[in-house]
Formats: sequence, structure tokens, C-alpha cells
Amino acid sequence: MLLEAIEHRPKMNWAYTVDKETIHLRIRTKKSDVERIFVIGGDKYAWDRTKEEIPMRVFASDELFDYWECEAKPPYRRLKYGFKLESGSETVWMNEDGFHHTERTSSDDFYEIAYINPEDIIKTPEWAKNAVFYQIFPERFANGDPSRDPENVQPWGGKPEVDSFFGGDLEGVRQHLDYIADLGINAIYFTPIFEAPSNHKYDTQDYLKLDPHFGDIDTLKQLIEECHGRGIRVLLDAVFNHSGKTFKPFVDVKENGADSAYADWFHVREFPIEVKDGIPSYETFSFEPNMPKFNTGHPEVKKYLLEAARYWIGEVGFDGWRLDVADEVDHRFWREFQTVVKEANPEAYIVGELWHEATPWLQGDQFDSAMNYPFTYAVRDFVALGKTDARKFAYSLSKQLARYPLPVSQAAFNLLDSHDTERILTVAGGDKNKLKLAVTIQMTYPGTPCVYYGDEIGIDGGADPDCRKCMEWDESKQDRDLHEFYKTAIGLRHEYAALRTGRFDVLHAEEGGHTLAYRREDEESTLIVALNASDKPQTVEIDANGGSEKTTAEAWSV
Amino acid sequence: MLLEAIEHRPKMNWAYTVDKETIHLRIRTKKSDVERIFVIGGDKYAWDRTKEEIPMRVFASDELFDYWECEAKPPYRRLKYGFKLESGSETVWMNEDGFHHTERTSSDDFYEIAYINPEDIIKTPEWAKNAVFYQIFPERFANGDPSRDPENVQPWGGKPEVDSFFGGDLEGVRQHLDYIADLGINAIYFTPIFEAPSNHKYDTQDYLKLDPHFGDIDTLKQLIEECHGRGIRVLLDAVFNHSGKTFKPFVDVKENGADSAYADWFHVREFPIEVKDGIPSYETFSFEPNMPKFNTGHPEVKKYLLEAARYWIGEVGFDGWRLDVADEVDHRFWREFQTVVKEANPEAYIVGELWHEATPWLQGDQFDSAMNYPFTYAVRDFVALGKTDARKFAYSLSKQLARYPLPVSQAAFNLLDSHDTERILTVAGGDKNKLKLAVTIQMTYPGTPCVYYGDEIGIDGGADPDCRKCMEWDESKQDRDLHEFYKTAIGLRHEYAALRTGRFDVLHAEEGGHTLAYRREDEESTLIVALNASDKPQTVEIDANGGSEKTTAEAWSV
Repeated sequence: MLLEAIEHRPKMNWAYTVDKETIHLRIRTKKSDVERIFVIGGDKYAWDRTKEEIPMRVFASDELFDYWECEAKPPYRRLKYGFKLESGSETVWMNEDGFHHTERTSSDDFYEIAYINPEDIIKTPEWAKNAVFYQIFPERFANGDPSRDPENVQPWGGKPEVDSFFGGDLEGVRQHLDYIADLGINAIYFTPIFEAPSNHKYDTQDYLKLDPHFGDIDTLKQLIEECHGRGIRVLLDAVFNHSGKTFKPFVDVKENGADSAYADWFHVREFPIEVKDGIPSYETFSFEPNMPKFNTGHPEVKKYLLEAARYWIGEVGFDGWRLDVADEVDHRFWREFQTVVKEANPEAYIVGELWHEATPWLQGDQFDSAMNYPFTYAVRDFVALGKTDARKFAYSLSKQLARYPLPVSQAAFNLLDSHDTERILTVAGGDKNKLKLAVTIQMTYPGTPCVYYGDEIGIDGGADPDCRKCMEWDESKQDRDLHEFYKTAIGLRHEYAALRTGRFDVLHAEEGGHTLAYRREDEESTLIVALNASDKPQTVEIDANGGSEKTTAEAWSV
Repeated sequence: MLLEAIEHRPKMNWAYTVDKETIHLRIRTKKSDVERIFVIGGDKYAWDRTKEEIPMRVFASDELFDYWECEAKPPYRRLKYGFKLESGSETVWMNEDGFHHTERTSSDDFYEIAYINPEDIIKTPEWAKNAVFYQIFPERFANGDPSRDPENVQPWGGKPEVDSFFGGDLEGVRQHLDYIADLGINAIYFTPIFEAPSNHKYDTQDYLKLDPHFGDIDTLKQLIEECHGRGIRVLLDAVFNHSGKTFKPFVDVKENGADSAYADWFHVREFPIEVKDGIPSYETFSFEPNMPKFNTGHPEVKKYLLEAARYWIGEVGFDGWRLDVADEVDHRFWREFQTVVKEANPEAYIVGELWHEATPWLQGDQFDSAMNYPFTYAVRDFVALGKTDARKFAYSLSKQLARYPLPVSQAAFNLLDSHDTERILTVAGGDKNKLKLAVTIQMTYPGTPCVYYGDEIGIDGGADPDCRKCMEWDESKQDRDLHEFYKTAIGLRHEYAALRTGRFDVLHAEEGGHTLAYRREDEESTLIVALNASDKPQTVEIDANGGSEKTTAEAWSV
């Protein structure tokens, strides 16, 4: 056995609790190097009568490693545990103090979950695990109230520029809720709607005020009420990393420098604030002078932003937050944020914009999940660009599943594109079969899928601002076949819980080729998804019954 | 290169920030497998003009791995980074997305510290890094006020039983501060002093009241004042995991069951609370019915305990907390606890009783350090019991150093024994040379040493209650030679900052033998510690000048 490859992390993402009785344990070994692993676990205060051996199973594999897991239900909510690894005639025991070639008589050196505290359980909202999201960029979805149009509004459907306005608003969204519901959507994610000068509203002017071009608070409350009436939850975007240039405290600091009452609200390196050689004398998002970074350690800043966090959930009725540039804000702020938000609504869903490894935010104390861009890029490379083979794609998915606790993976925000990327259809060179294949994966994979508005009727678009085109409401200009496909795929996801929260097992992932098959399975049903990302028909043999009899295999071709 | 062995964890303990400018980065490789490693780092928004290569160095090694580290000081407090690993003609680039055999042109897939937020910096109190602690079990240190003796007090110096009282008190401690200061001690750790029926006081009756047998609040405040006047800090022990059986809310629950106003203060599985076949119907420490576990998620419990946490620091003047059974309490509670305590005193030192891998508590958000029992057992096995060779001992120390951020290692609570273990002299079979060797290691190793009262004059003792004997104040019965040795060792630690916060490098660790040498070094001085844990004289050649010229090598023999 290659001992150097064997890895376990006590607590953190490889030993965590999911309810008052249940611990998930994971371990990593060199690929195909170990045949069987057992957890040896028990209560440290009653070792002899509670000790048990629990078999583990491989739940994911990548280029280098196998990842194993099992569940433990210790009778007194305490677990001391070690691992017994078997390969051929070799048996190795692994405890916290290292490897042993004989079994230890004492559990002193074992790993430990000292107690399953309810406060430390990793749980994510059930509704989010069962949601199919629709992302709306409000300025571009529908113009329902032309009286609220900004000055210089462009004709609907024109070419979007960085600073153009087309007059989209919340009343427009309200008027199209039938359309959204008909597609099978049960959750909407709105990019920001707070008062802000830009069309995208990521440069907030007032965190407690709706942008008047989008509507008034009554329109918003009515919209949310109508959404809830249809079983549609509503997620809101916010930028707590930085404000916009018209945010009053920042304006005050610009004007009054160190004498401003808000001087400590930002990270100012030197007063007066200015920009020298393109470098602001204060911290900003990137080097953008108009996006000054908040000092989120300052009590007044925290009070202001956390009040906003509470207000839109607790009083206006939103069901959660998507957090812009979440990785540049401190962890302490996010922990307080989570406390405030979950107090306002224990079922609120918190999604961070985190493009990278997100483990430090996903231990149950900060976010429920992250924008799953690693998923986005894996699907693009495999399906849309053909850059990776099925094997590498499967490895990439497995690596992601191994990284996060199960409740986090089940609520991962799985998107194919967004207002921050090229549209998936454009990445696929306009090939709608590729788009359909990508959507098939998205709708049959663990995690919360999100459809970017208009993808479902064939809207294309390159990088920002081109990916922010106006929604097309003329049905004759919509791709209705594609729309039908989306409805079917989303419908299938709603029909089978196994596609949402069932186990995920790769059955086949062709090396150097493009055929992939995986199984989703729960107690109710088993579904096999078989995909061919090449242009040509392919025949693949799959051992579909691997260990399971209760099968409803479903053939479904794109 | 063995890729399976290479490991890096973004954020967490292997990529953390220590001040507003500085990031520590670490990576693990198979032992002796890689010759050079460079961090390739830069600002993601200004990659081309900030990109740099930073060489790493091996700072620790164990049986299987080398651990490398370096420091990065990104100009704009943001760091994207990857690793370049070289061995012979082989070069491998490791980024977040895996391994590559050519350099990546883009930093998109690199690891990232998105921003050095001041709130996330890992810092531990400077005074703790420079402290030598003395642990006092108040009931057994000195009887300064016989009027406060409990009933049935035993004659001082008698054999301790589980429930015996000898009349030690705080006035007794106060009277011996000269003795303590003379030894070189600059910090005292008191086991609990809150009102409680037992002699050890781990079964708290009232968290806001001093035990009357130990003194009144004025004696305590005077004691703390006198300590502070001598530059001695004072650490207090508390049990926030469970209360004692006489704690009023628990008494109320026992009497009134589900109707008690305190019914939710504990984790009751079934009312009325009772014990069946040795298993309480409520959660406890171990299966001990008289130590009911707090529901630390309950707002009133939190309020009560956090008020205690604040009161003893903010109003009475203690300098920190040692937290009993810290691993069985939830992380959310500890985070709030840290906030409250550091608000009361930003320099407060928080030490958890954690016998195992403590990373989940030592990320800067909960504790400053942990009782370093892994150190205790490593020293015992090598020095006192001769169970491990010098090589294995060095590996064990290295493993621990690799586990924790540097500021945490520098404040690790390094003890040789305590009220919970056999005394080190007894473990060493009464061999005082072995004891001296153990103390030499303790006083020359990174982390905060703690002397258990009486060890310095030769008190021995087996497991509890024998390790809790009365302090011997008759000088003729004290081992004055040993006492002198302690003074010298402690004095040496105070004299050379390098012994406290300097680098630690193993120079020699004999395989199958007992000779060990290591270097402690900072900008001021270099010290070589050479140890022989065998009975016989040994000659060892050491390359003492490895890379350094500024040496004050000091010969010091035990």
C-alpha cells in the first residue's frame, strides 16, 4: 500500500456530522491500491461494548486517488475511530498517530469526533436541494413598467454595451411568472436590485433601497408573494465586499478625508484618497477606484451591512443570498452574516461567489454552497469544447464531490453560464446538441441547477456585455424545440428524487473518448444516464445492475 | 516525483496570514523526493508586473514526508499562487486543478488567498509566546488561611484520596509568590477555583462565585494584582462543557423535569432524568451522572456562560482561559467565546484541553493554542520510557510543527505532566537525570512551557489522585539541586529569544539510538541543543554551522 497517498482529515470536510446521530467519514487512498477499508469505531467511554467495524465504499475516483466513505451512528454521539485497510495479504491500521502493522489494543491514538453537537451539524436547506433555479439579470429580462425606464433607454433587443439600459424591471418579471413556472422553475436568482448607477447594480448606492428603475417596494413584495404562491423561492444578489462610488459614506470620505465620520468604513492606506499610476490609495475591488472595499471588521460597517442582510430576508421576504466576491471578505463577517440571516429565516439559502476550492467557507458555519464554476468549466471542456475526454471529466466531477460534505454537494449551485461568462451556447459554437448534452448533465447531477435566462430559448452571447442581451419574448424568434427540451429535462429532475439527492456513481468514462455513463440512485429508483459527447453514434456496454435490483432504467436520447 | 504524496491545503493551516502583509505557505512532499520548490505568486489583477518566484525550504520531516514553507508579501494583499517542484531533470507545476508538466500561461487555475483581511489573521498573544507557566492545583499548593479550611481537612502532606481535602487556598499562593517568581515563572495556570463541592472543582456549582474554601473575591483580586506587579500573568481553568450536580439549574431540572425553566439548558433525552443500567437519560461528561452536559446552543446558557467568560477576564483581571473538555463543546460556542474574551482583553490567552489533532480549533477563530499532550507523550516515550528512538521522536515533533500555523506552535501549551497524568518523575521511574533531560527539551522547544507545581523539587506521583499531592514547603525535603536546574533552564529560555520564537531545525536524530541535536535560531543568536537520552556517554558530530555564521553556540550539560 502506498502510505504516502493515504489521507484523512479529522473533522473538517472528511469527518463531519449531518444529523444528531450520523457522522460521515471519508478517507483517500492511491487509486486501485486498496481492496477493502473498515472504520473501527466506538465510544471512548464504553469502547468494549460499542466497538464495531464499518465497511467503507469508494464513492469517487480521480487520476491519482480513490475516495472512500461510510456512515457511523455512534449510540452516545461520541466516536473514536481508526481505519483498517486491506490489500491482498497486507493489512494496515491507520490512526491519528500514523500507520501500524498490528491492531492497536487501545483507542487512545485514534481519531475522534468528541461529541455530535447539534450546532456543528452541516445542513443545507432541503428546498435548495430540490430547486431548479432561473437566473435573471433584471435590466434585461422584461420591461413591464416603461414609466420607470432610465433616461436614454435603448430599444428592447438592441446590442448591449457596457453602459446601456433597456428598461427591464420587476413588473416585467411579475408578468412572466407563468412562463417561468411553466418551464419547471421553482427558484429565481436575481442579480442585484439595490439602488445603483450601473445597469448591473454591482456598484451599490444604498443597501436598503430598491433601485427605482426596477420598481418600488410594493411591486417587489407583490412579486415575491406571487412567486411564493407558485412555490417559487427567490434569491437575491448582494455585494458586501465593496460599495459603489455613489454610496454616501464613501462620498463623505472622498470629500472629508480622515475627518469623515466614515473614514474607518473603508481600508484607506493614505488620505486624501486618490489614484496614483492606476493604484488607489485605498483598497478596492481589483484596482477599480469606484468600488471601494468595505472594512468589514468595523462595528458600524458590520451593523449596517448585517441590517441589510436581515432586512431583505426578514422583512421583504427573500429566501436567501448570493454573495458577490465572497472570497475577499473576512470569514468572521460571514459567520456573523450566517447567524443573522438564519435567524431571520432558518431555511434561507446562502450561496457564495467562490470560483475556487471553497472548503474554508463550506464547513457549515458560513455558506450553504458556492457558485459551482469548477462544474461549469468541467462541462464546458468536455461537452462544449471537446478539450477533455470522458475519463478526465469524470475525474473532475469526482474530485469536486470528494471535496465537500454531502449536504454541501447536494446544494452546490451548478451553473453552465452566468452574467459573468460567455453563454454556454456560444462556447459550444452554436451547437444546440452540445447545449442539450450540457443541460442533461446539469439536470441529472447532484447539486442545484441554475438556468441563465434565455439559454432555454437559444439566446447566445460572448463575454460581458454580450452575455447580457435582452430576453426574447417573440415566440417566433425563440427556439421552441430547445425550450421543450429544457422543460423535459427539468421535469425529469423534479420527477425523480434520485436525480437530486440520490447517490452518484460513474459506471463508464471512456479514456481518450467521449462516452460517459453514470447512475443516480436512491431507495425509490435507479436512473442510468448515458452520454455521447462526440458527433458519431457510439455503442457502450454498461454493467447497469451493479449491486442493485430495484431499477427503473430509463432510456432518454438527446 | 511521487505525486500522490504532494499535498497543499489552501487557506486552513497550510496557507494562512500572520499580519497585514504576510502569508505563510506550506506544501508536503514525499520524503527526500523533491530537491527544490518555488512558489509562483502574484496579484491576479496585476499578474505580469507582480509575478515572482519564492523559494521554499524544508522546515520539518517525518517518516514519510518533507514539509516545506515560505513567506509571501504580496504588494496588494492578494495572492494567486502555484508551486514549481524540481527533482533532477523533472519539473512539475502544481496548481489547484492538479499537476502539469509545462508551466501554465494563465493563473486562472492557481490557488488563491483572495485578500488578507485583518480579521482573518492568525495571531496569538506575544506574552504567551514568552511565558513560562506554573500549574497550580489550589487545594494542594499552600494553606495560607486555615480559617477557610473545609471540614475534615487532612494534615498537610498526607496521602491524597479522590475526595480528600488539605486546605490549600489562594492566600497560600499569594504567600509563595516570591518562590514562584524566583523560579523564573512569569505565568500561573490555576485549575478551577469556582465554587464546587469537590477538591478539584471541575464540578462547578456557580460560575460567577469563587469557592469560599479558596478565599474571597478580595483575596483573589489582591493575588492577581500582586502577580501582575511581578509581571506574572494568570490563567484560569473553566468547565463550559458540563456543570456539577449542585449547579442550581441542574438541581431544578432534577426536581421539576420538563416543567423546569432550565429544562433546555441540558441535553435531556427523556424526562424525568434518571440513570438506567449506568446510562443517564441526559447527556453527560462520559457517563458521569453528576456532570450534566450543557446545551451550549441555547441562548440563555450561552448568555450565562459567556457572561462568566467576560467577568473573570474583564472585571476580575485574569489573563486568559484554559478550557476543560473543549472538544466536546460546539465550535459556534467557542467562536462567540473568543469574541467575548478578546473584547474584554485583546491579549487574553485561550488554551483548549484538546488531546488530539486540534486544527479545527486553531484557525485563529477559536483558541490560541491547545494543551500539547502529543508533545507530552512524545517526550515521555523518548526520554522517560526509552520507548522510541531519537529519529522517531524528531519525526513526532516535526509532525506537530507541520500541523499548526506558526503563531499557534509558538504558543502551544507544552506540558510534561498535569493533574490529569502521572508525574513525569514517576513515569521516568524516579530517574532525575531523565527528568532534567525532559525539562531541557521543554525549555528549548517552540511553545509555552508549563511546570506542574512541585515537579521542580522532586515531587512524584502516579495517576490521579496520587499526582495531586501537597506541595512540599520544607526546604530540607525539597530537591534543591533539581530546583536549581529548573531555575537555570528557565533562565536560559528567558535569556535567549531564539529558544522561544526562533526557528527550530533538527540537526541530528539517531536512528535506533538516543542522541538528538537541534538548533534554535533567530536574528540575535543561534543555540544548539545536543541531547543524549541513553545511560552512556555518546559522541556525535553535528554540522552546527549549516548556513549560519552568527552563532553563539553554548555548551550546557545535564
